[in-house]
Amino acid sequence: MNYNEMALKLHKDNVGKIEVTSKVKVENKTDLSTAYTPGVAEPCMEIFRNIDSVYDYTAKSNLVAVVSDGTAVLGLGDIGAHASIPVMEGKAVLFKAFANVDAFPICLNTKDTEEIIRTVKLLEPVFGGINLEDIGAPRCFEIEKRLKEELDIPIFHDDQHGTAIVTAAAIINSLKITDKKIEDIEAVINGSGAAGIAIAKLLLKMGIKDIIMCDSRGIISSERTDLNDSKKEILSITNKSDTVGTLADAMKDKDVFIGVSAPGVVTKDMVSSMNEKSIVLPMANPTPEIMPDLALEAGAYIVGTGRSDFPNQVNNVLAFPGIFRGALDVRAKEINEEMKIAAAYAIAATVKDEELSQDFILPEAFNKAVGTNVAEAVRKAAIESGAARI
Amino acid sequence: MNYNEMALKLHKDNVGKIEVTSKVKVENKTDLSTAYTPGVAEPCMEIFRNIDSVYDYTAKSNLVAVVSDGTAVLGLGDIGAHASIPVMEGKAVLFKAFANVDAFPICLNTKDTEEIIRTVKLLEPVFGGINLEDIGAPRCFEIEKRLKEELDIPIFHDDQHGTAIVTAAAIINSLKITDKKIEDIEAVINGSGAAGIAIAKLLLKMGIKDIIMCDSRGIISSERTDLNDSKKEILSITNKSDTVGTLADAMKDKDVFIGVSAPGVVTKDMVSSMNEKSIVLPMANPTPEIMPDLALEAGAYIVGTGRSDFPNQVNNVLAFPGIFRGALDVRAKEINEEMKIAAAYAIAATVKDEELSQDFILPEAFNKAVGTNVAEAVRKAAIESGAARI
Repeated sequence: MNYNEMALKLHKDNVGKIEVTSKVKVENKTDLSTAYTPGVAEPCMEIFRNIDSVYDYTAKSNLVAVVSDGTAVLGLGDIGAHASIPVMEGKAVLFKAFANVDAFPICLNTKDTEEIIRTVKLLEPVFGGINLEDIGAPRCFEIEKRLKEELDIPIFHDDQHGTAIVTAAAIINSLKITDKKIEDIEAVINGSGAAGIAIAKLLLKMGIKDIIMCDSRGIISSERTDLNDSKKEILSITNKSDTVGTLADAMKDKDVFIGVSAPGVVTKDMVSSMNEKSIVLPMANPTPEIMPDLALEAGAYIVGTGRSDFPNQVNNVLAFPGIFRGALDVRAKEINEEMKIAAAYAIAATVKDEELSQDFILPEAFNKAVGTNVAEAVRKAAIESGAARI
Repeated sequence: MNYNEMALKLHKDNVGKIEVTSKVKVENKTDLSTAYTPGVAEPCMEIFRNIDSVYDYTAKSNLVAVVSDGTAVLGLGDIGAHASIPVMEGKAVLFKAFANVDAFPICLNTKDTEEIIRTVKLLEPVFGGINLEDIGAPRCFEIEKRLKEELDIPIFHDDQHGTAIVTAAAIINSLKITDKKIEDIEAVINGSGAAGIAIAKLLLKMGIKDIIMCDSRGIISSERTDLNDSKKEILSITNKSDTVGTLADAMKDKDVFIGVSAPGVVTKDMVSSMNEKSIVLPMANPTPEIMPDLALEAGAYIVGTGRSDFPNQVNNVLAFPGIFRGALDVRAKEINEEMKIAAAYAIAATVKDEELSQDFILPEAFNKAVGTNVAEAVRKAAIESGAARI
């Protein structure tokens, strides 16, 4: 059987992948009277008198909603809320396996931005955090922005920030190997959707010298008259020399290429035109912007993709479990830039300097130390940045 | 420690009572590739092509939302969504313990009827059923009615129908002992809120001769000018002789008293004025309308309350787990009257005729046969009434 057949069988045999289980037993009248009436009235009234104690007496302190509207599911596109459930249950399974976070799928039968925002706000009482997932751009920007403003629990759009954090970790370690400094390097990002923009913002926050953003029509520059609001915004902080032209023009003499775009759009000539010891991260899934062997032949020094069958997999599972573990542990009000950067450095530092190589810039997905290290770094950053409640 | 102290400790030690666990393991790349990408795309696309297969590939087939707005929590009243969570988690624990149903608390931060309806509709994809809980009257009526019309999964307001079903079971067995027939008896229900009205409707559906409804101002009759819509509606099918007066007037020469009202409002004289072999169910919690010993002294033949420390506890846990078990097993579109009546008879029949006595008209809460019997009866009734999908 191939993965597809195995996956279908796995889902059918288990009838889905998650269940809701009890942390307390109910075997006699005393159990019933403490887990339920009349005793349960006591924690209820404690929370009524002091709403913050909801973290002490309910599952909220360890519970994350995986929220999707099913409009941008994997590479499958707008398949709807029902069809998105296996992905969101899968995310919940990873949260539990990698960081003991309880996560629950919330697949909403609407594509209306305001309805999604309102619904998540109404659901907030039971959840300690919100992981937005597979919501199409540009609606995902508005939804995340508004929820961050209007709720005081962590809101995290994994397709943006999870990808950005792991990409940043890959670059941090690549720079160690290539002996370059982040403030000296220039990067090209091909793909100016949710992930591309989030990567750009995080790298800028970390001090990168400059970034040129591209989309399917070429470089995002002041000459372009077809830019939407999010592209206009990102232009205001990237492409400082206002370079114009194609992706090939952009890549010339650059140190880093990051692809979150489409299969095969990068040629060997483009890679050859980059600076020495170039870092090439073609992450389109399942087929990268350029296959690793071609990129290496063309002179790339380090190559990473989104795939598990090549070295250096840029995999979100390195980030989101530990980030929420850390945020929940300190009852964080948000996941801010400091916490994201701390997570990126913690992922990078999990690979020891003596282990680092061109083929090993990121920890393996199943390295248990990653989640622990990320959680610790995120807790510390949350406390220092004032995001922590405890 | 008393129950209150024990309950507080239980909730704090466990930090809530539920967790979300995985039915599949994720220990290697193959697990990751079948539970998540790339394999997970396959069940997604199956559901996209055939939406009914969502029951085959996701947890929906065993998942119930316990939905509350926190406005009518136990006897505590409007304590808000956050403070209601321990009750809703408790309900989830009971669903799992008594019928292996996965239930998840949805505590909504709004009291707006339309918002609650809309939110539940948006959440429908992941849930196979909706248990409404502790939502104040009269909003609970509109919410349940509209959701039943607009969704094709079971909607069940336990405070109404769970109570009604177990009360009906108590009456079914009491009639066996007193050798009376339902079509010959008349009942008085004191309390015309959600539970009282649901009990009246179910008993009428089961063929009871007549019911007189009372509220705190006395009998609901055509003379009353202060009736809200739900009381006007119930008047149109009860009190056929249009009796006027007080609760005491109502109880005279009746066979059954059902209390879902307030402590101590029934006197010994009122009980004495009832027919021979009267059935008295004062279910106000924690203090009944009349204490059992006083009711028995006054001539009541059978007495049942809501309390576990007296005989004949009318406890919803006898109904809701098995009802949802049965409904989910056949992917029911609704929980209709036939299914409710079948559940009442199944609860009653769990007590064998030779076991029946004045002090034993209902099965014990921990009798495992109850849930099994109820589920079987509900499945059968769902199939026969056309509510079942399979």
